[in-house]
Amino acid sequence: MLDTPLAVSLGDPAGIGPEVVAKSWERRHAERLPPFFAVGNLAAVEAVWDGPVETIGAPDEAAAIWDEALPVLQIADSTTPPGGHELIGARNALDALELAVGLTRSGAASGLVTGPVSKVRLYAVGFNHPGQTEFVAERCGVSRELTAMMLAGPTLRVVPVTTHIPFREVIDALSVERIAAKGRAAARGLQRQFGIENPRIAVAGLNPHAGEQGALGREEIDIITPAIERLREEGYEVTGPHPPDVMFNAHRRATYDLALCMYHDQGLIPLKTLHFDDGINVTLGLPIVRTSPDHGTAFDIAGKNMADPGAMIAAIRTAGECAARLAAA
Amino acid sequence: MLDTPLAVSLGDPAGIGPEVVAKSWERRHAERLPPFFAVGNLAAVEAVWDGPVETIGAPDEAAAIWDEALPVLQIADSTTPPGGHELIGARNALDALELAVGLTRSGAASGLVTGPVSKVRLYAVGFNHPGQTEFVAERCGVSRELTAMMLAGPTLRVVPVTTHIPFREVIDALSVERIAAKGRAAARGLQRQFGIENPRIAVAGLNPHAGEQGALGREEIDIITPAIERLREEGYEVTGPHPPDVMFNAHRRATYDLALCMYHDQGLIPLKTLHFDDGINVTLGLPIVRTSPDHGTAFDIAGKNMADPGAMIAAIRTAGECAARLAAA
Repeated sequence: MLDTPLAVSLGDPAGIGPEVVAKSWERRHAERLPPFFAVGNLAAVEAVWDGPVETIGAPDEAAAIWDEALPVLQIADSTTPPGGHELIGARNALDALELAVGLTRSGAASGLVTGPVSKVRLYAVGFNHPGQTEFVAERCGVSRELTAMMLAGPTLRVVPVTTHIPFREVIDALSVERIAAKGRAAARGLQRQFGIENPRIAVAGLNPHAGEQGALGREEIDIITPAIERLREEGYEVTGPHPPDVMFNAHRRATYDLALCMYHDQGLIPLKTLHFDDGINVTLGLPIVRTSPDHGTAFDIAGKNMADPGAMIAAIRTAGECAARLAAA
Repeated sequence: MLDTPLAVSLGDPAGIGPEVVAKSWERRHAERLPPFFAVGNLAAVEAVWDGPVETIGAPDEAAAIWDEALPVLQIADSTTPPGGHELIGARNALDALELAVGLTRSGAASGLVTGPVSKVRLYAVGFNHPGQTEFVAERCGVSRELTAMMLAGPTLRVVPVTTHIPFREVIDALSVERIAAKGRAAARGLQRQFGIENPRIAVAGLNPHAGEQGALGREEIDIITPAIERLREEGYEVTGPHPPDVMFNAHRRATYDLALCMYHDQGLIPLKTLHFDDGINVTLGLPIVRTSPDHGTAFDIAGKNMADPGAMIAAIRTAGECAARLAAA
């Protein structure tokens, strides 16, 4: 049982965020979700959902309302219709994110779940972080390099060492230090937030067949293996470099707790191939708990009652579990 | 019904090839496999399997034996025990491959299935092709560029445009011409050998999120989209460039017949994540049918009666189906 509720930002009001948050509240008993309140725009929820919703003035009012209605901490009166293209929605999403982060940092909320935003629209209103993850890290005063973006589904967790950069820049962005830092952040995060005492980290190679002893590329020899050795010296349980194509089948997934991947698609292809509808994003290395569903705004289906809340439900449940572990530690 | 049997090379006699070929014959009725004969070393089969096996002097003797015993076209008296490391095994594998290709080209066999070999060992005996695929292409007098390596499982087919090259060399190896050539070979192969009249080809991007309109890389704009347009002008049904991480989930896989991927792991990660035990390799663009199981020699489990013949069975079945279509065309 958490002392305070989770804060769930609705994301872009014109996307599917409001719908999946409302549907998650609807299934709160069946899914045994911890209490949460939405941060965003009441009208954005009402536009796509006809269930009970009530505004609150502060997080501690959420508990009294939780059984009867979805509590919403209102951040603006302006709104945007579902599927709409107004930039005011991006401003709204940013304000909601900022408030939700602040409430979680202060302890008024025990964990943060972020709804989907449009990066392109956020950039247009002056947002200058690569994504919500980096924004949250900055607000928490933590260097990006010490955090790790973990994507997780029921049978696979991955952390990409490099994320949203062009394919051409991947090799130059890889270094022994960076791989080791991401491995360390991942291992510590699994220990602190997921209660895994000795996380087994499987490190992927970069080249086909992990380079075949140098015949198909030397990065395994020059960069990845030294990083693995460094992590082992620090006491972490690390294997690899593994040939990337054979490490994600069911037998192999059962042998590790997390796959440390060299680039975005190396980790996200298997994750989304297996767990497209219920994958979540967890930021490790922060002083607070932060999760989000691993899907976008899906503007094309917003307002049509078609959005699957599975990933949002998983993100809320995981945030609750992680927050309980942090509180007990 | 095929006029002639399939030729199945045993691969390296010290690997699991002989075992999975023998186990495939054992299940020939349950799996409704077309008649085939093994090409390789009788002793290699006898060392790992106690079922009936009989040598033949020519492919046309296989039919009479098929019901009673696994027919083996013997290519040498020398042998190598399972798991053994002698190079004589590589020589044996190469001789078997050469003979099986020749018999298929001549029509004495209606299709070729190749067992797993060790490339490292083949190189040590003077083999100078990147793999069996290129060797077969050369023996058929077809330029590699006109062939395509297709990996296929029950729910996904992929063709990587670039294959066994270092990650660092991928971008320079991609060109409009090369992508279009592989797409063309793939589409024609699906038409000719798989009976798909209008194959739907989904082309992957290279960068995360397919480059986000250039923000995360320009290869989609400069190379991949022009290749897609060229293929469309030629009348092929081609979509993309698709964001690589979201194109392999079950919903999306149902919308195309083949994914054209930019590099080895982009295609092989989802294929082997989904179909590790029954994935097969099909060479498209040859005048003959050629398939193989998508696994290696697995020297570590050879001779232990542990090998799963699922992929070999799928390779034999597919070769039979493709050969029947070519014969009917």
